[in-house]
Amino acid sequence: MKMQTVAELLKKGNTLQEVTIKGWVRSFRSKRFIALNDGSTLNNIQCVVNFEETDETTLKRITTGAAVSITGELTESQGQGQSLEIQVKKIEILGDSDPESYPIQPKKHSFEFLRENAHLRTRTNTFSAVMRLRSSLSFAIHKYFNENGFYYMHTPIITGSDAEGAGEMFRVTGLDPKNPPLTENGKVDYSKDFFGKETNLTVSGQLEAETYAMSLGKVYTFGPTFRAENSNTSRHLAEFWMIEPEVAFMDLAGNMDLAEDFMKSVLSYILEHNKEDLEFLDQRLLDEEKTKPQAERSEMSLIEKIKFVVDNNFKRVSYTEAIDILRNSKPNKKKKFNYIIEEWGADLQSEHERFLVEKHFKCPVILFDYPANIKAFYMRLNEDGKTVRAMDILFPGIGEMVGGSQREERLDVLKEKMKALDIDEEELWWYLDLRKYGTAVHSGFGLGFERLVMFATGMGNIRDVIPFPRTPQNAEF
Amino acid sequence: MKMQTVAELLKKGNTLQEVTIKGWVRSFRSKRFIALNDGSTLNNIQCVVNFEETDETTLKRITTGAAVSITGELTESQGQGQSLEIQVKKIEILGDSDPESYPIQPKKHSFEFLRENAHLRTRTNTFSAVMRLRSSLSFAIHKYFNENGFYYMHTPIITGSDAEGAGEMFRVTGLDPKNPPLTENGKVDYSKDFFGKETNLTVSGQLEAETYAMSLGKVYTFGPTFRAENSNTSRHLAEFWMIEPEVAFMDLAGNMDLAEDFMKSVLSYILEHNKEDLEFLDQRLLDEEKTKPQAERSEMSLIEKIKFVVDNNFKRVSYTEAIDILRNSKPNKKKKFNYIIEEWGADLQSEHERFLVEKHFKCPVILFDYPANIKAFYMRLNEDGKTVRAMDILFPGIGEMVGGSQREERLDVLKEKMKALDIDEEELWWYLDLRKYGTAVHSGFGLGFERLVMFATGMGNIRDVIPFPRTPQNAEF
Repeated sequence: MKMQTVAELLKKGNTLQEVTIKGWVRSFRSKRFIALNDGSTLNNIQCVVNFEETDETTLKRITTGAAVSITGELTESQGQGQSLEIQVKKIEILGDSDPESYPIQPKKHSFEFLRENAHLRTRTNTFSAVMRLRSSLSFAIHKYFNENGFYYMHTPIITGSDAEGAGEMFRVTGLDPKNPPLTENGKVDYSKDFFGKETNLTVSGQLEAETYAMSLGKVYTFGPTFRAENSNTSRHLAEFWMIEPEVAFMDLAGNMDLAEDFMKSVLSYILEHNKEDLEFLDQRLLDEEKTKPQAERSEMSLIEKIKFVVDNNFKRVSYTEAIDILRNSKPNKKKKFNYIIEEWGADLQSEHERFLVEKHFKCPVILFDYPANIKAFYMRLNEDGKTVRAMDILFPGIGEMVGGSQREERLDVLKEKMKALDIDEEELWWYLDLRKYGTAVHSGFGLGFERLVMFATGMGNIRDVIPFPRTPQNAEF
Repeated sequence: MKMQTVAELLKKGNTLQEVTIKGWVRSFRSKRFIALNDGSTLNNIQCVVNFEETDETTLKRITTGAAVSITGELTESQGQGQSLEIQVKKIEILGDSDPESYPIQPKKHSFEFLRENAHLRTRTNTFSAVMRLRSSLSFAIHKYFNENGFYYMHTPIITGSDAEGAGEMFRVTGLDPKNPPLTENGKVDYSKDFFGKETNLTVSGQLEAETYAMSLGKVYTFGPTFRAENSNTSRHLAEFWMIEPEVAFMDLAGNMDLAEDFMKSVLSYILEHNKEDLEFLDQRLLDEEKTKPQAERSEMSLIEKIKFVVDNNFKRVSYTEAIDILRNSKPNKKKKFNYIIEEWGADLQSEHERFLVEKHFKCPVILFDYPANIKAFYMRLNEDGKTVRAMDILFPGIGEMVGGSQREERLDVLKEKMKALDIDEEELWWYLDLRKYGTAVHSGFGLGFERLVMFATGMGNIRDVIPFPRTPQNAEF
């Protein structure tokens, strides 16, 4: 008899046959009812033990966290809340779990405690649901791009280029940490390092993705990226995963269409495939919000928020329009913002973005055509000479979810921009080649995967949506 | 009119309608026939220019590598070798390509030259086919696991653990490279580094994957891994991608079944979905082999080799049987091996593996039950006390494709093994916890993704199956 998972058993629902199932005890009550979970689904399966025919030693070893193998008959359940249960004929303890020392007790643990036990936290309903959703979202992303003619590419993690400009980088090295070789000028001699030059961990695969867009047409990356920034917040990780599509012959309007269609598609996927996990997390968020003052509670539940994004158009607003709205807004006039918006050109802070998304428009917003001088060198300069074809997509409760742009395809304009910003042309010779040989309009965006998982799960701390978070002072596990 | 890709045009085949297509000129002959490629497929679409009605300046700008936008009528082709062509009504040059300096000329380039131009090499048939296949294989992998109830997890890239034991590691640091802070003892003070301890790039996600297998049941990783080994060969990369499934309650036999089923499934996927790219690469390999002496040529073509793997059972052979075969083999008796196999316990070299796979069995081989002392600490010790439940899958022409094992689930045995190898228990406290709380039989394997892409594309150098290879002295792009 082939072993089955709880998910398979519950789905097939073939009662009155003998089954064998292996999993971990979530709880054991009245010496009779085991709630067994094997991770395949949020749902436990109830296993009814005939305690009169089971020896006392075995009964004592059925503790929370123990691994067991159970053989018995699958029947309609008599109890409430579950449809099927197993009448246990044989139970074998595979691995004990000392109820005194086992960290995951059958009670509510703080997320902070569970972070310290990240190797065990997926044994709880909340974290198993979050990580199943993370997996489902990953698959939905690959599926979306595959069905839409995109090719997946792996851009390099170790990079010799420091011109990506998206943030502080970690150095990757094999040199003697204490006594590195020095050049005649007394500088560290990276020509003796593994790669023959100074190397860092990538902050973005975009520039490399552009090389493939300009040959394969539609490509995307989905890989880890890094920031060596000392930000100890609930929104930042030193290591996180990013999705970066890049498309030849696509302008900024096409980029907005793509991003919106993409977001809606992957969120639809989880509504369809992860109903139970979402319902659990929906309830969890409701319970959490009950502890907050009324004014801070969300108007929509988790599932309502996801459906809202799927069903409604994202609002497209130019930076210039946004500045007007902000300048005339109550919090600006009453000086409630920390940064008062006075004139065109101001960089928007998270408080402004939140106002636009959560108070003013109350829906996802695509801001576009930003001032050139607050955006990256590779963004396409508009004909006005002062704005670039950049876009940011802002989500309620999350802030920036997507950042993208049409790329500067004109060699002369790009070179000028690089010169002004002191970016070495020789460093990016290959990037410039794309503008020398068969250049064309092209665009792309980056989506921080953990931000998406936070939105889709309602988790408030980014450390709780990645298996083993890397943050300042923490690289445990 | 929505823009279409060449792949879409050729698939739909709706002739006698006006279409607009954008792409790059592969060749332009007789001032009349443009072979246009947009990367969506290996196939070019022929665009027939009415040169009498096109101005001379435009005609001159239709050069290899130029980006163009073409509008015209899709018709049945008169020429041989293509089914459809476009009668050009309007052509617009989007981006020029100087025919004198453009590196990708319409002729055969050496792979070495193309590696130096890796940002442009997917503009050739060979590399676009390879990278489309790489993308397809990636998708097939996610699809397989998704359909079989596995959850995808992202294991950390930056690791504070150096106990993985799979090879030399790169250091990740934010310390001053020249004057790092020192402890009182004069050692580098990593407590002052970003993560508060010494950190490296991961060599494997297995240990972390085990934590999720022991809660979610079936999981897999697919991410980058690293080796700081100074191996300048056609088989080694410093940065490569690895797939690592890990399954609770699965023993070594189940592990073999999974690996075989998985390999067959992903290879079947490309046979079904990448016919044109495979046929092109099949022919390329045939041409390449013609330059070799008869004895060195492969007996099977690329597609035949892939089909052979899909259609035939992998041969399962214990290490002990393999040693017997090798000891009695001709090359061993005639001392043709560099390392003569004399007794049980010898580590197998690539020459032995190749003999077994290519000469003796002539099919993929799963070797299992290796001597404990040549394998990693976490492998399950057999009852004989001297072998472990390890397996390696060897492929013709590639060598080791998969390495896996049943994991040691017994706390006492694992601790003993770690002690013997001087692995700090405190370092792996979380890994030991899995054996303390609800331990169970579990197994998994690692598959080097680039090895699989090499096998599926017939490319002989691993640097040619990853977009931007990282090797000693090379981190260009």
